[in-house]
Amino acid sequence: MPRAGEVDLAVAGGADGAYALGKLTSVVLDALADGATARGGPLPDGGPTAVAERLRAACAPVLPERGTGAEEALRTVVRAVAEGAADPAHPWCAAHLHCPPLAVAAAADLAAAALNPSMDSWDQAPAAAVLEQDVTAALADLVYPGRAAADALVTSGGTESNLVALLLARERARAAGAATVRVVCGANAHHSVRRAAWLLDLPEPVTVAAPGGRLDPDAVDRALARTTGPALVVATAGTTDEGLVDPLPELGSVAARHGAELHVDAAYGGPLLFSERLAPRLDGLTAATSVTFDLHKLGWQPVAAGVLAVADGAALAPLALRADYLNADDDGEAGLPDLLGRSIRTTRRPDVLKVAATLRALGRDGLGALVEHCVDAAHAFAALVDAHPRLRRRPGDIGISTVLFRPTAADAAAPADGDALVAEVRRRLLTEGRAVVGRAVAEDADGTRRLWLKATLLHPRAAGEDLAGLLDLVAATAARTSTTHPQEPEGPR
Amino acid sequence: MPRAGEVDLAVAGGADGAYALGKLTSVVLDALADGATARGGPLPDGGPTAVAERLRAACAPVLPERGTGAEEALRTVVRAVAEGAADPAHPWCAAHLHCPPLAVAAAADLAAAALNPSMDSWDQAPAAAVLEQDVTAALADLVYPGRAAADALVTSGGTESNLVALLLARERARAAGAATVRVVCGANAHHSVRRAAWLLDLPEPVTVAAPGGRLDPDAVDRALARTTGPALVVATAGTTDEGLVDPLPELGSVAARHGAELHVDAAYGGPLLFSERLAPRLDGLTAATSVTFDLHKLGWQPVAAGVLAVADGAALAPLALRADYLNADDDGEAGLPDLLGRSIRTTRRPDVLKVAATLRALGRDGLGALVEHCVDAAHAFAALVDAHPRLRRRPGDIGISTVLFRPTAADAAAPADGDALVAEVRRRLLTEGRAVVGRAVAEDADGTRRLWLKATLLHPRAAGEDLAGLLDLVAATAARTSTTHPQEPEGPR
Repeated sequence: MPRAGEVDLAVAGGADGAYALGKLTSVVLDALADGATARGGPLPDGGPTAVAERLRAACAPVLPERGTGAEEALRTVVRAVAEGAADPAHPWCAAHLHCPPLAVAAAADLAAAALNPSMDSWDQAPAAAVLEQDVTAALADLVYPGRAAADALVTSGGTESNLVALLLARERARAAGAATVRVVCGANAHHSVRRAAWLLDLPEPVTVAAPGGRLDPDAVDRALARTTGPALVVATAGTTDEGLVDPLPELGSVAARHGAELHVDAAYGGPLLFSERLAPRLDGLTAATSVTFDLHKLGWQPVAAGVLAVADGAALAPLALRADYLNADDDGEAGLPDLLGRSIRTTRRPDVLKVAATLRALGRDGLGALVEHCVDAAHAFAALVDAHPRLRRRPGDIGISTVLFRPTAADAAAPADGDALVAEVRRRLLTEGRAVVGRAVAEDADGTRRLWLKATLLHPRAAGEDLAGLLDLVAATAARTSTTHPQEPEGPR
Repeated sequence: MPRAGEVDLAVAGGADGAYALGKLTSVVLDALADGATARGGPLPDGGPTAVAERLRAACAPVLPERGTGAEEALRTVVRAVAEGAADPAHPWCAAHLHCPPLAVAAAADLAAAALNPSMDSWDQAPAAAVLEQDVTAALADLVYPGRAAADALVTSGGTESNLVALLLARERARAAGAATVRVVCGANAHHSVRRAAWLLDLPEPVTVAAPGGRLDPDAVDRALARTTGPALVVATAGTTDEGLVDPLPELGSVAARHGAELHVDAAYGGPLLFSERLAPRLDGLTAATSVTFDLHKLGWQPVAAGVLAVADGAALAPLALRADYLNADDDGEAGLPDLLGRSIRTTRRPDVLKVAATLRALGRDGLGALVEHCVDAAHAFAALVDAHPRLRRRPGDIGISTVLFRPTAADAAAPADGDALVAEVRRRLLTEGRAVVGRAVAEDADGTRRLWLKATLLHPRAAGEDLAGLLDLVAATAARTSTTHPQEPEGPR
């Protein structure tokens, strides 16, 4: 045995594991608090070079010849990563579909790590497998209410969910004698749809127009009319850039008219279903053959907590797999559950544990209230933008909890310079460690596509007043940037 | 805002998050200890039905209309999952490549969950991205010492690593003008190789013989001679069934002679490289274009901690991807790092954090010593089997830390009945909650393929004496099973 302190080589499991784990988690909690205090804002200042230097000053070499012991290592590495984090727990860290996890979910994830069930065979996850079965059934019922055949898989996120959805569509097409399936998606679809088609070696997806950020059913109609063989229409409920929901009922009708299937990427919007008030925004969802649905966006789970729901569990049959060490026939006949067909991964962490703890802690109404809070916060934020003398909101609907806006100073410049100013304001906020806001290209009222700043409001507690200061900061940074904006290197024009 | 207690809606991040998280992690630690005590062994007793009933009695409904609060939810869900876990921290839970995580790794994973960096853009993971860059560089150097161009990706495990390896091979083949790549693998290869070929729509892999559990270079030579166009030989360093290492130097030579590439699935065996004494078992590895390498097997990380190392980082170019919200050109020009081409996932948890904490805590020599411990424990275990009057070891080499054995009572029966007895003993140990041992089909001395029990020794502290009792238990269970073994339903033969 290596000679080292008790806690250095302690395993996390068993009745004794909790003791060592408790000792070490208290080091982690202190390091998290210290790192956050040292950072003092939503992200570290100084930009990429300074962040890298600080991290390396603390953590290099990352693979030393001799170890420093568990406590020193945790103190050092966790503190450095916390100090250098873009922390979505800060209300001004609002760029992406990158949520602040609830403490209840993060705490449950500790149990997942300590117990380390692997979801690919019953004898690695006896109880966790049952929990996953029940939670996925509940989520399938949320998406497809009352549909007994509905089922759902846990995935690593929207990208994997979309990949599996396209894979299953490909296999259905082949089972029906076709060579492949043709994907028809909007210009507003997430990049993972095209990436999945590439991975699966499908034909290049047909991309149709999404005027104003929403997929146009007439354009889909025309695209399907030109398509031969099986087709899969991919719609989005909560676009990445704007949080908009495609017209699902119309898209369902168009797809049905052409005998095409519908997949809805509701990675962002799916949790609207927790709220009675907001669920109607997803009307038409049940016409989909499959639905992507994340709980690490709205849902406040640490990554990963992805879901793929299917209207009919029989659709999952192509994932079935036999590997004698995990699901031998005779074990199945003797009653050992077969979990291998529930994922394209093999070894798989029990992401369901944190989800189950959160669903139980908050209940459907609690989660619905948090979703409503974010939607309301976005409307309040939009009103603040509208009232702001030096900012302008993108005309049109507010996405689920996403607001696009830009400094009016950007409008005064030539279009390309205006966009450059927007991008520069964002980078300046980032490199100064002041705020994390996103960027998106979207149509202005006159149809011109412009660059906007993007606020994605996912904080379950932050409200309008927490965000008012962010707008003043953006406006002030824009004013500072427009006067100091670097000219073309060639000199004055 | 929803009305609920402070801790119920607390987020895990920020300087304040640690307080709520501390309160809740102490609930989790108690629940883990309570659950382990209630279980009282390596896995719950009663088999699938009883386990499901107990879990549901505690946890149903999994999506209540109203929540129970964070503390109640954690206490209930974590305790139920812990009570119903197959816990690899128990030395008699030794079926699979399913390791007991070190407490240091599990504690670091808590920080990952609380901070929730997402590894797809710099502004979601400023410091974590640097840490990942340095850790993957160090692991790439471990696999390809001194090769400056080597690089590595973090994956969700061996299955994703193999998938990406085959994807990159496909894209290289296409860049060279070929239609596809032909995979040549052994009968001993992990099922994920064939699954990846299916997913990527490659031709069915050519499967060649693996007599005695190792891929036969002459058979690969013959297979490559019959193959036209680009080919990828997939070898295994640490087979799932036996822990055997394919003859890498010979396979590298054969592949090179045919202009084929070599990928080595060292998901299990890769960490031998941490040990000076054991690293030579992987001689020939550096001839591989890519190497799969897991740290959630030997490496003692909670799932997931997968790695794909490549000899030349330029091989990763096909993963490059442009998504303006994550890596716009002008952001790249302004110095913001582009992380999107580092994975086939988009949103991605910082699995590197726990890996970095572990590497720093133990150092290369500490990890090497733990790997050596497992290898030595397997040899000690094999010696105990050899000395046991009622057990017999599979003839031949001991795999990395895997030992195959069976009750001699199984040899006394007709071959099919003997195999049925072995399977029944395993299931009985499982359903009685006594031990988790695996199963594998492998050749006996006479060339007959038989079913064996499998012990995969991954516990970093358990030694021979902890395992002696397991052998007596297996022998006693076999004796009990052989007399009560259910006859064919038709009646006596």
